[in-house]
Amino acid sequence: MEQITIREIAKLCGVGVSTVSRAINDHPDINDATKQLVMETIRKYNYVPNNSARNLKRSDSNTIAVLIKGITNPFFADMIQVLEREVTGRKYSFVLQHVEEFEDEVDVALLLEKEKRLKGIVFLGGISNRTGEKLSLLGVPYVISTVEAGFGEETAMVAVDNEKESRRMVEYLLSCGHEKIALLAAKKDDASIGMLRHRGYRTALEKSGRDYDEELVMWTRDESLTYTMENGYALAKELLESGREFTCIYAISDSMAIGACKALFDAGKRVPEDYSVAGFDGLDLAKYYEPSITTVRQPRKEMAEATIRLLFDMIEQKPVRMRQLFEAQMVPGKSTRIRKKGK
Amino acid sequence: MEQITIREIAKLCGVGVSTVSRAINDHPDINDATKQLVMETIRKYNYVPNNSARNLKRSDSNTIAVLIKGITNPFFADMIQVLEREVTGRKYSFVLQHVEEFEDEVDVALLLEKEKRLKGIVFLGGISNRTGEKLSLLGVPYVISTVEAGFGEETAMVAVDNEKESRRMVEYLLSCGHEKIALLAAKKDDASIGMLRHRGYRTALEKSGRDYDEELVMWTRDESLTYTMENGYALAKELLESGREFTCIYAISDSMAIGACKALFDAGKRVPEDYSVAGFDGLDLAKYYEPSITTVRQPRKEMAEATIRLLFDMIEQKPVRMRQLFEAQMVPGKSTRIRKKGK
Repeated sequence: MEQITIREIAKLCGVGVSTVSRAINDHPDINDATKQLVMETIRKYNYVPNNSARNLKRSDSNTIAVLIKGITNPFFADMIQVLEREVTGRKYSFVLQHVEEFEDEVDVALLLEKEKRLKGIVFLGGISNRTGEKLSLLGVPYVISTVEAGFGEETAMVAVDNEKESRRMVEYLLSCGHEKIALLAAKKDDASIGMLRHRGYRTALEKSGRDYDEELVMWTRDESLTYTMENGYALAKELLESGREFTCIYAISDSMAIGACKALFDAGKRVPEDYSVAGFDGLDLAKYYEPSITTVRQPRKEMAEATIRLLFDMIEQKPVRMRQLFEAQMVPGKSTRIRKKGK
Repeated sequence: MEQITIREIAKLCGVGVSTVSRAINDHPDINDATKQLVMETIRKYNYVPNNSARNLKRSDSNTIAVLIKGITNPFFADMIQVLEREVTGRKYSFVLQHVEEFEDEVDVALLLEKEKRLKGIVFLGGISNRTGEKLSLLGVPYVISTVEAGFGEETAMVAVDNEKESRRMVEYLLSCGHEKIALLAAKKDDASIGMLRHRGYRTALEKSGRDYDEELVMWTRDESLTYTMENGYALAKELLESGREFTCIYAISDSMAIGACKALFDAGKRVPEDYSVAGFDGLDLAKYYEPSITTVRQPRKEMAEATIRLLFDMIEQKPVRMRQLFEAQMVPGKSTRIRKKGK
């Protein structure tokens, strides 16, 4: 059977080829009705967009590499789609490089750079001021995305203010009447967002006149992967078994918060009746969990778009604002409750 | 400060360099106590494994590309780590290529192939007998992983028998006394695992003498992403609002099952007291959800390892078994209940 072409699809829909391409690539600049019409026509004629301009141009185009630490973290998975769309929309190739937990992403970047088509790099998560020192060795523009720890003014960066947002969460929990808030924290020597979220927790307590109680901070063990349900489960279980007094668990990620909920359920406790639980990130999962998780939502889509915009402005040597901080949003869920005095 | 070397770490631990490397790379061939000692020493001396043999060799080594459709699917995210470890453990580079929902992965593979260092390809998910026809154009060995739809005997493939495992799930639900089992299915024209899981559902009903009721099959809409919580939520909501009678929802993925649970909760229903819900895949999430989701667990780690083993056997022109089917495991959770007659 003769394959229908993108031109014929465009004609059938009464739109231009670029509109069909936008529909296929889930580009935001297309209205829903047109997009639906295009997609229906594509399905009806069994069009496979294999000869799209995008693919044909891929082989000889410039490349943007995204280095990601923590591929299993759903927080990043959602961002990748936006990064990919923004990069290919600019006719660049998109390469995703997975970096292992104990690998140095800057070393990986330095090797990738030998690829002569590489025009820019995005570091997605993971990077810290420990590895950051070697960034100056990179010869192509780069943007650090979702992490804002300890870099100088000359480092391009898109993130939320993790310390401030973490503080906001703890202030919210305090305002709900929780006095004994346990923290499920990163590793004790974390030098990235884990450190900042811990700092926000501590600052919120101290600024409100409470004591910071190291006993209520559950550090992730060296051998564990920090931002996982498994880790949240293990830390909450350990906390419960310690017999320490608390009314609320604040986990520094939604995945950890979900693990913590499960540990509480398995111990016969209810959330939020017996214990409140809060997370951080604003994953879809937090919304679909039962009870929905109280969280701080990072504007992932906007951050991903800003990351690519900043990177291309640097590539094109336009004047840029190197440090772009986004506001997160407090999202109360059903996993926390308001405590009345003395209860 | 002088960086400590991997040799010094090995010496301090009384082990060989390769053991340190195994600990760093989370390789299975190392006992837990040794691994813990190595990791503690690494942390203590602040060793950053940046000059590991693995990284230095990366730049001039051969490459294996993994093409993944559905990067946001947690089912694949978990497999990537194993694939990466198995590839780099063989001193090859590992490149992850994200393929968009409407992109043809074989076209992308054909372009990647122009990279002269590319020695093999893994297709992770997505591929169907529609795109499969052009596979013969590929000049390097490839393995299709987690999909077994409609390919010939000459196509290298590692997967579970999706139809059989889906049938097993429905037989389990029937054995629990559910007569009216609704299916949250893929798109109606799906030609991959969605089609096979639907077929398993239908076969189980018919072989047990029940009617297959098209009314209870909720097909994913064209504009939706099939294997998502959002889609499961939308389909279950539509099912509930249709007023059709059912006692159990079987969703063809765990993510969809979780979305379905949430739709039931939001409608004031209980799981499993009012409705049972089952999924497919065996994600960690299914275990941490409350109630835990009844599911069929695919042996992801084993499948990922077999995928790379098969690919390298092909690269080395060893005799191979081209079609490798794995057994999945029925995992009853708390989201389904046994129905007594007439209730």
